[in-house]
Amino acid sequence: MNKNSSNTMALAPNTSNKRETVCIFGTGDFGRALGQKMIQSGYPVVYGSRSTQISSLIPKDAEVLGHAEAAQKAAVIIIAIQRQHYNFLTTLAEVLHGKVLVDISNNLKLNQYPESNAEYLAQLLPGSKVVKGFNTVSAWALQSGTLDASRQVFICGDDVEAKQMVMNIVRGLGLTPVDKGSLLAAQEIENYPLQLFPMWKFPIFLSLGLGLFFFFYSLALDVIHTYIYENNNFSFFIAITVPNRVFPAMALTLFGLVYLPGIFAAIIQLYRGTKYRRFPDWLDRWMLARKQLGLIALAFASLHAVFTLVTPLRAFSSWRTSRQIISQALSNETVTLDHTNAWLSDSYLAMGMLGFFLFVLLGITSLPSVSNSVNWREFRFVQSKLGYLALILCTAHAMIYGGKWFLNPSAYKWYLPDIYMLSLVVPCAVLVVKFVLIFPCVDKHLTRIRQGWERKPRYSERSNHIINKSAV
Amino acid sequence: MNKNSSNTMALAPNTSNKRETVCIFGTGDFGRALGQKMIQSGYPVVYGSRSTQISSLIPKDAEVLGHAEAAQKAAVIIIAIQRQHYNFLTTLAEVLHGKVLVDISNNLKLNQYPESNAEYLAQLLPGSKVVKGFNTVSAWALQSGTLDASRQVFICGDDVEAKQMVMNIVRGLGLTPVDKGSLLAAQEIENYPLQLFPMWKFPIFLSLGLGLFFFFYSLALDVIHTYIYENNNFSFFIAITVPNRVFPAMALTLFGLVYLPGIFAAIIQLYRGTKYRRFPDWLDRWMLARKQLGLIALAFASLHAVFTLVTPLRAFSSWRTSRQIISQALSNETVTLDHTNAWLSDSYLAMGMLGFFLFVLLGITSLPSVSNSVNWREFRFVQSKLGYLALILCTAHAMIYGGKWFLNPSAYKWYLPDIYMLSLVVPCAVLVVKFVLIFPCVDKHLTRIRQGWERKPRYSERSNHIINKSAV
Amino acid sequence: MNKNSSNTMALAPNTSNKRETVCIFGTGDFGRALGQKMIQSGYPVVYGSRSTQISSLIPKDAEVLGHAEAAQKAAVIIIAIQRQHYNFLTTLAEVLHGKVLVDISNNLKLNQYPESNAEYLAQLLPGSKVVKGFNTVSAWALQSGTLDASRQVFICGDDVEAKQMVMNIVRGLGLTPVDKGSLLAAQEIENYPLQLFPMWKFPIFLSLGLGLFFFFYSLALDVIHTYIYENNNFSFFIAITVPNRVFPAMALTLFGLVYLPGIFAAIIQLYRGTKYRRFPDWLDRWMLARKQLGLIALAFASLHAVFTLVTPLRAFSSWRTSRQIISQALSNETVTLDHTNAWLSDSYLAMGMLGFFLFVLLGITSLPSVSNSVNWREFRFVQSKLGYLALILCTAHAMIYGGKWFLNPSAYKWYLPDIYMLSLVVPCAVLVVKFVLIFPCVDKHLTRIRQGWERKPRYSERSNHIINKSAV
Repeated sequence: MNKNSSNTMALAPNTSNKRETVCIFGTGDFGRALGQKMIQSGYPVVYGSRSTQISSLIPKDAEVLGHAEAAQKAAVIIIAIQRQHYNFLTTLAEVLHGKVLVDISNNLKLNQYPESNAEYLAQLLPGSKVVKGFNTVSAWALQSGTLDASRQVFICGDDVEAKQMVMNIVRGLGLTPVDKGSLLAAQEIENYPLQLFPMWKFPIFLSLGLGLFFFFYSLALDVIHTYIYENNNFSFFIAITVPNRVFPAMALTLFGLVYLPGIFAAIIQLYRGTKYRRFPDWLDRWMLARKQLGLIALAFASLHAVFTLVTPLRAFSSWRTSRQIISQALSNETVTLDHTNAWLSDSYLAMGMLGFFLFVLLGITSLPSVSNSVNWREFRFVQSKLGYLALILCTAHAMIYGGKWFLNPSAYKWYLPDIYMLSLVVPCAVLVVKFVLIFPCVDKHLTRIRQGWERKPRYSERSNHIINKSAV
Repeated sequence: MNKNSSNTMALAPNTSNKRETVCIFGTGDFGRALGQKMIQSGYPVVYGSRSTQISSLIPKDAEVLGHAEAAQKAAVIIIAIQRQHYNFLTTLAEVLHGKVLVDISNNLKLNQYPESNAEYLAQLLPGSKVVKGFNTVSAWALQSGTLDASRQVFICGDDVEAKQMVMNIVRGLGLTPVDKGSLLAAQEIENYPLQLFPMWKFPIFLSLGLGLFFFFYSLALDVIHTYIYENNNFSFFIAITVPNRVFPAMALTLFGLVYLPGIFAAIIQLYRGTKYRRFPDWLDRWMLARKQLGLIALAFASLHAVFTLVTPLRAFSSWRTSRQIISQALSNETVTLDHTNAWLSDSYLAMGMLGFFLFVLLGITSLPSVSNSVNWREFRFVQSKLGYLALILCTAHAMIYGGKWFLNPSAYKWYLPDIYMLSLVVPCAVLVVKFVLIFPCVDKHLTRIRQGWERKPRYSERSNHIINKSAV
Repeated sequence: MNKNSSNTMALAPNTSNKRETVCIFGTGDFGRALGQKMIQSGYPVVYGSRSTQISSLIPKDAEVLGHAEAAQKAAVIIIAIQRQHYNFLTTLAEVLHGKVLVDISNNLKLNQYPESNAEYLAQLLPGSKVVKGFNTVSAWALQSGTLDASRQVFICGDDVEAKQMVMNIVRGLGLTPVDKGSLLAAQEIENYPLQLFPMWKFPIFLSLGLGLFFFFYSLALDVIHTYIYENNNFSFFIAITVPNRVFPAMALTLFGLVYLPGIFAAIIQLYRGTKYRRFPDWLDRWMLARKQLGLIALAFASLHAVFTLVTPLRAFSSWRTSRQIISQALSNETVTLDHTNAWLSDSYLAMGMLGFFLFVLLGITSLPSVSNSVNWREFRFVQSKLGYLALILCTAHAMIYGGKWFLNPSAYKWYLPDIYMLSLVVPCAVLVVKFVLIFPCVDKHLTRIRQGWERKPRYSERSNHIINKSAV
């Protein structure tokens, strides 16, 4: 082991516990917050500032110097100035040569510039070692110490040692550095803090639209129809009854929509006889949204479970029970147990509960820390096998619940099917086609295609082209 | 800092953003999928192939060359060919000298070969730097972009710089490299994707066996016995009533089985008077399965909770309520509240709910991300103190539920104890022995043993032997 | 790439798979356990011991030598002796020069010594490379193999290569090294295993105090008052009814206390006209405890949900239902549905369930693995927007539940307000002030302050001082 390794020397001086000085260019809000935090963590901080007028808010123990002077005092320089002022740094190119420049800037919009700020900085100052970092941390959080969400600091850069130095500072501040590789990752890191659940947008809008449709559908059939034809004002149904018809319909439909793209993919592959052609874009996007669709379906299923369990506590429910029991008592009939009814009631409840239980299991395995600790085979087993089992149970739950009403004309108010019938469309379609797809003859064919077999290898021209090219 | 570090140069050229060329040997399914993904991520890809006949499916922008030519174009070579063809690579030893070879192979069975594929490759080509990686990623997932489960790429290798280069490529593809250390870890990494919940096998089979036993036991007593002796056809009990007798029995028994091995271990240590002898194998295996047993117990407890809460919604339940109220009304008695009954009913429900609540807390702390953020002392506090409290509450719940029936002969249908009595056996045994073990005199003794004290240090002969050996 | 890099050579010899010898100083409990584990993982282990008397318990395949001899055999030496004996190591300074010393010691109390043990060791032996590690792992867990909580091994040290060597050993034992930076982190690492939920202490004591108050308050009004004035012995209310009045009161009050410090902070900033002054200490501590307060509130809300859902299963509840229905039947009234009542009942239930649902969502996003995968903007959106929505729903739930009783004198037993009125105090205060704070004029002002604006920049003197200092 080479004891005098310059690397080791630079990173952590063995002989003294003093931390290395850090220079910060710019005395804006984030520059000050970061400097404050660094001073608290034992780093001497020197600010580089054009004027000393605005320095009144700078942390107490920091030094303030001109840019060039400040830069000379430290190996690591935090560039806490805005991209549009980066030009000015070229005048300091000589002083900054060989220094580690940490680009902490953020943009206002996604992909605002053709290249990331950090790459732009690296182009301006080719002699310096640019590291991207700290941009995902909030100034407010740094100051208040409440860093629940943002302990992770994404770091990227082309120089490994420079990256190591910055990562050590990150650790020194009590944060967790995450190495994202070379400076090419800077664009992604700069876009990161601007996102607001980008993967959730499509599933949430879809759910909103579908939810509104089901809501008004149920409102029409359960409240308005009753009001018009039976002259019963059940407007309070809006609070629990109507939502509890919308929630299961949403849950079941969205759960079906999770498995529908897989069905489409299989059909497309079977039709094309190859897996080597891209799926249409809408299918790709849909497949990537399956996890989110599933979690929203789970949320609706949970709401359905709670809204159902609360039934006996409702004033409406106790009124209905009273009325029913008293009328039975007055009619002097012997109360006998309808066994068919008991079977139907118990089995649809049991199906629903078991389906919901499996659905919650699916949800738990999609937690990042759980899904990271299973391998691909285990993940597929849970998401595919258990998922289909849950879908079957939930579909059966809705079918048995509907039971005898399917063929009963009185269930079709205004000649419209009841909401639970609508909710069965997607899952039943999925299950029927899936049932066909697992027929041995179809399944074998599909498996062959997925292992790379092709009905007619069409790309021979292209392959010739490649061969020709490679032969050149 | 040495600015001309060859390391830095090799890893990430500062002057250009172009990513380094990667060579892939083999044009099979995974080789093509990986190449496609690399091209999408900006890496120039060159395939090394024996013949160009099969190259028709190769990604469009890739080059295809002979093996030797292809290898010369890149510093990193992905070996996407099967282990049985590795021999052929020795003919290229000269070209591959100093190159980074990435072994991505998987086997069909656990521990198929005496040494891992990567170690075998390293033996064949001692001049190359072998890195294991990518084998845990699925080709299908790479192509479809749905990498939920397998963002983590386990990497191991003996050469640190080679490993860094591969880890940078992994990051470049949007995946997360996990450094598993030296090439010795390759065996483990190769076994990983073949596993299907290996830790869960024993607990699941145990639960299945126990569950079937309880199911038929309850079926016999609750359905068949009623049918024969009371002539009541309660076959619909199979849907909810019988499961809801099996679930709590399973939950309580399995919960007891979580703490039983700890009791055995303490007894064995007390008996032997030392902690320096291995436990029997079955006990070791049992102790390692405690977490899984506990989670299965929690699953059954959750099912029990839901199946119980759904009771008032059952047709059977509303029939029973009607019958009861009408008979009370007809008999013209004043309905008085039985205070003992109210106490028993409320306290067994409260015990059950509090026990279940603590049980869920235990479950949450066993989520990987939560258990990683507590220290050993905190983990033991939760799993041991809170765990025993939950066990006590759940056991009390079952005992108070049973209440007056323990001594009532009519509870013993066919002279068999009711199912809740069976479920109390294990937890009661655990709690009684635990109660003895925390007696100060026993506890002090046990603590001394666990801190290293021995009743009779038996190993003096062996120690001499060691001293002799070391003296040689 | 420099093929003969000493680094690579030292870390992992390419030519042989044998792991490097590790030396352990000290044959105490942890030294033995660690040695055993290392031998199992394929590391040759040599113990350094002053006498060979106590060596009888040393793992079978380990060698035992004198300290100096043992140290010469390995590059890495585990110092498994207590801090008070570190002095003795100075006599071996020459042998230990250039070696990697791993300090695995723990203290009995937090911050027992002015400097960490590892830093003390580094001072004693300036020629050695000290790495802190393994202290968070339990000897018991190492031996029994049950390492659920402590797979993470925190490592810190000033020498990067030494740290790499130790991290490789950690990985070799099947554990996960976590690099905490330079040796300055040793103090934190040594304190870590001594902590028992330090962040939870204040929230738990607060909850206990508040809970006891609410419990006795409810006991007085719901049990004792009823007993005295209505002569009804409802002592069994202690099991479910009283807790289920305490739980929601606790949940709502604690939920309010989560958002109260943010309100205080805004008021203080508005009053001071600046954000550049530290909040009072109590406010800082309170803000840091918000997550814990929120989770405890969620726990109480969950208990409230379960205790409420179980209502129909209580003996008391079925008695009350029977009595009510029979009295209705006997009085021969027609049972009519009270629509206002139905509206109130359904809407307070719906509010409660939706509020609880959002509350659970908040809880899920505070799981470490989930909160790590969202960015700062997303985290604030969930915790602030969804959090306030949940608070509004839960507060409305309690208000509608109270409903007509607010102005009814009979609700004030002993002239005291009911418990649900008390629980509304904090959340209502929070919501009212928050409502004022989001008025455009106030909000704009506050936003400006939070972006760095100041009413009167007071620190001009200090800034001059800084400029002067830096000019010197």
